[in-house]
Amino acid sequence: VGDFVREGVPLYVQIANSIAERIRSGELGTGDQLPSERQLAEELLVSRMTVRQALLALRQQGLVDGQHGRGTFITQPRIEQPVDVLIGFSDNMVKRGIKPSARLLKLESILANREIAAELQLHLGESVYAVHRLRLANDIPAALEYSHFPAHCCPGLDSHDLEGRSVYAILAEEYGIHLTSAYQSLEPVVATAQQAQRLTISKGAPLMLVTRTSYDEQQRVVEFAQDLYRGDYFRFVSGARPSSP
Amino acid sequence: VGDFVREGVPLYVQIANSIAERIRSGELGTGDQLPSERQLAEELLVSRMTVRQALLALRQQGLVDGQHGRGTFITQPRIEQPVDVLIGFSDNMVKRGIKPSARLLKLESILANREIAAELQLHLGESVYAVHRLRLANDIPAALEYSHFPAHCCPGLDSHDLEGRSVYAILAEEYGIHLTSAYQSLEPVVATAQQAQRLTISKGAPLMLVTRTSYDEQQRVVEFAQDLYRGDYFRFVSGARPSSP
Repeated sequence: VGDFVREGVPLYVQIANSIAERIRSGELGTGDQLPSERQLAEELLVSRMTVRQALLALRQQGLVDGQHGRGTFITQPRIEQPVDVLIGFSDNMVKRGIKPSARLLKLESILANREIAAELQLHLGESVYAVHRLRLANDIPAALEYSHFPAHCCPGLDSHDLEGRSVYAILAEEYGIHLTSAYQSLEPVVATAQQAQRLTISKGAPLMLVTRTSYDEQQRVVEFAQDLYRGDYFRFVSGARPSSP
Repeated sequence: VGDFVREGVPLYVQIANSIAERIRSGELGTGDQLPSERQLAEELLVSRMTVRQALLALRQQGLVDGQHGRGTFITQPRIEQPVDVLIGFSDNMVKRGIKPSARLLKLESILANREIAAELQLHLGESVYAVHRLRLANDIPAALEYSHFPAHCCPGLDSHDLEGRSVYAILAEEYGIHLTSAYQSLEPVVATAQQAQRLTISKGAPLMLVTRTSYDEQQRVVEFAQDLYRGDYFRFVSGARPSSP
């Protein structure tokens, strides 16, 4: 137990940190199973309650997963998604050596309601493409995307391959629309039963709701999107600088 | 019900949007109670299931709150916390006309464990100040901050008023340390029982875990912080630009 005794840091935090360190160093890999609570408690000469707290902390950090009685497993390390850089799901995955794909949940032309009209700076009732997609990372359900595009910007968008191609690539290559900036808002939410089922996670699991409005070179709003990312798969990263000297 | 029928948008989304719009316009204010599910269903000529779905969507957006049988209430609008701008809790609150305060949960000098040493670029066992604070916004518990500062940067930090003053102000005014950049990572998590109790929310409620390393003018790491923000109080915002032309 000597390895774990450090002044002022609770024992369970020290145990969690030590396991986290073994995950970060690669000594423990994705899918590996940790010893049981009982085994860990015996090995480390601590109470099962302490082990349980350590495992909870690791679960909260998204480093391990598992249900009571079924063991604790090392989860896939988180995928970093930049907040301050405008990069689509597909491009970010490819950059990280992960195969992106999409399953179309809904693709239709709708009339803008108040919220969508306001966000896309359209009049109420103007035509909008609603594109709802399940996004997969190496074939694992990773995010739900609910995107809206003004129909006058990209007429016939619904005729393109929205399962096989990045929608940003379609906008650029087919319509000459290049996104030059976006405004993003991030909020932690918990999965509803339906979202959980689609993302193959538990109801109540943490999700990141990313709301985004994207602008083209003429400062037109060309996208309003609400994306739900699995909290156990993604972390959102950004640099920060003081606002003024 | 005519007001609510819009092509292609599920009824419950239209109802949720209409209520959200009345919140945004100020017609419904913080603390106002919505009619009951039954009353709403009768008023809008829709099923109670549809009303329930709409209320769930509003709850997920953090616009309303409430438990079964106790009614649904309009919550305080979210406080925007910038992700790409380095601004402390206190300064951000003051800027928005909200009174910030802090309750010290822990203040001690500890020896850096592996994780803290790695994050602060110190040797294992070097002295570090651990500052754990509950942050309040207009006296309402809003966030938990777990910050660590290398002791050699700010000797005697523990003798300053960490409940009454911004820690960044103390670093600047007492030690001449000016933060010039930071790296932040955002992850959605759910509240443990202890966190929930401290933040006066429900266990399992969504929280934003913000992990930050901050640098001074000499590019020294001067802060490693893990903050937990209430998901119902904050949204995290950022501009985004393409990484390269």
